[in-house]
Amino acid sequence: MSYHLYFNGQIAPLDTPLFQSNDLGLLRGYALFDYFRTYNGVPFRWDDYWQRFANSARLLKLPLPLSQAETAAILTELHQLSGQAEVAFRFVLTGGYAPDSVQVVQPNFLIRTEPLPVDNPAGRLQGIKVLPYEYVRDLPEIKSTNYVHMVLMADEMKRQQAADLLFHKKGEISELTRSNVFLFKGDTLITPDRHVLHGITRRTVMELAAPHFEVQVRPVLYDELLHADEAFTTSTTKWVMPIVQVGEHAIGQGGAGKRTLFLQELFDALIAKWGK
Amino acid sequence: MSYHLYFNGQIAPLDTPLFQSNDLGLLRGYALFDYFRTYNGVPFRWDDYWQRFANSARLLKLPLPLSQAETAAILTELHQLSGQAEVAFRFVLTGGYAPDSVQVVQPNFLIRTEPLPVDNPAGRLQGIKVLPYEYVRDLPEIKSTNYVHMVLMADEMKRQQAADLLFHKKGEISELTRSNVFLFKGDTLITPDRHVLHGITRRTVMELAAPHFEVQVRPVLYDELLHADEAFTTSTTKWVMPIVQVGEHAIGQGGAGKRTLFLQELFDALIAKWGK
Repeated sequence: MSYHLYFNGQIAPLDTPLFQSNDLGLLRGYALFDYFRTYNGVPFRWDDYWQRFANSARLLKLPLPLSQAETAAILTELHQLSGQAEVAFRFVLTGGYAPDSVQVVQPNFLIRTEPLPVDNPAGRLQGIKVLPYEYVRDLPEIKSTNYVHMVLMADEMKRQQAADLLFHKKGEISELTRSNVFLFKGDTLITPDRHVLHGITRRTVMELAAPHFEVQVRPVLYDELLHADEAFTTSTTKWVMPIVQVGEHAIGQGGAGKRTLFLQELFDALIAKWGK
Repeated sequence: MSYHLYFNGQIAPLDTPLFQSNDLGLLRGYALFDYFRTYNGVPFRWDDYWQRFANSARLLKLPLPLSQAETAAILTELHQLSGQAEVAFRFVLTGGYAPDSVQVVQPNFLIRTEPLPVDNPAGRLQGIKVLPYEYVRDLPEIKSTNYVHMVLMADEMKRQQAADLLFHKKGEISELTRSNVFLFKGDTLITPDRHVLHGITRRTVMELAAPHFEVQVRPVLYDELLHADEAFTTSTTKWVMPIVQVGEHAIGQGGAGKRTLFLQELFDALIAKWGK
């Protein structure tokens, strides 16, 4: 039993050399991906992740090589092969092999099974520091593979003991490198509506918060974040993670906020019973 | 005799499956490349291309796996294996395999030998149409693999019988998707100084033009291009290619300009005697 992948109709061990060198994902950055995981052995919000994946593909004009049902059957097979109770799945859809290095002929479709990431339990309790970074993602609604700034800044983040970058541009915040951002002002929960990837965890948290807080989805100023009472980020791997510091500036009291921790509890309760 | 590639110390046929699926070029778009060709069997301005490649690598903080001399020896071997008089070489340097999908451990270095591209001889005489496109490349001095907009717009360009996109932003032009842009206003040759990749053909043309024209390297307004007497683009594969139409707007007299054709002749003469 070990982690395997699916690639254009084949199942193979995870470290198999696969891609020929004229793949448009490799040569031209023309690729999208998605990433999700199981709880209690059941993929979390599979319909939502599939829909987002299909939407990214549509925006990049790439035909989907498989239906949702065909893909689900592959996920089941890969999950069994892994021998693990819980796994993460990474989809990658590239522009495929291009004789002229430009035109899409036939996409390459990869599904990787991966071990669950380490979840930074300390960060979840104490909160994380992020570095402000002037940037806005290109084509933000596409979960493209363009993460150049994240990789470029990895060493600097380590040096400054920061967990991530906070993207802002023209005084407006958008997201972290791989996760969405929320802030609390009193009992109002606020999250940017534009220049963001529509995270599934973001949506889940908004649904969980709706009965308890006023939820505003609108442009958010960088300045609002600095003066927020609480802030947090959401993603498939981070769940609800408090943000307590932006550069050298502390948010609110400088610790995980009580409303943030309340949402974290609601989220934890949801996944604890997922699939049951 | 056939086209081969070099990959991390190995020589292999061009269509060999090579890349494992956790390459940072593939998963995170963290990769750079370069592209050059031979004339009379001798790589054109090899020192300049190597220097640009090394500069891109430095800016992406990727160590070069080989020295220039080691690389030159591989080029010679690949050229011989091709059995062709003339070849093009494509370098690709990626962030390599990343266990955590984020941190660079060891770059992957690929050198592909490729057939010479078809040179659009009709375009060189009659000139090409380009579509204006509001965009500026991220980290433009790095020859990164991010060409999403070019691939995304490939069908639309065909539909509009355009050969390329012209990037402009905030009223300023920068470059085409893979080539630099120049314009003539009278006997003054003007090309943008910022938000551009520093093309080797661009530099060659500026050197060739210097004895004959005033050369200005400075920010260039989109409006200046529209009212230019002549315009052209330069690249490794396009040489000096007249631009005669931007969207539905004709440049100058709407045909290849006489100064442009003069520079084209100078360039043709240079490459005709290259290496001799």
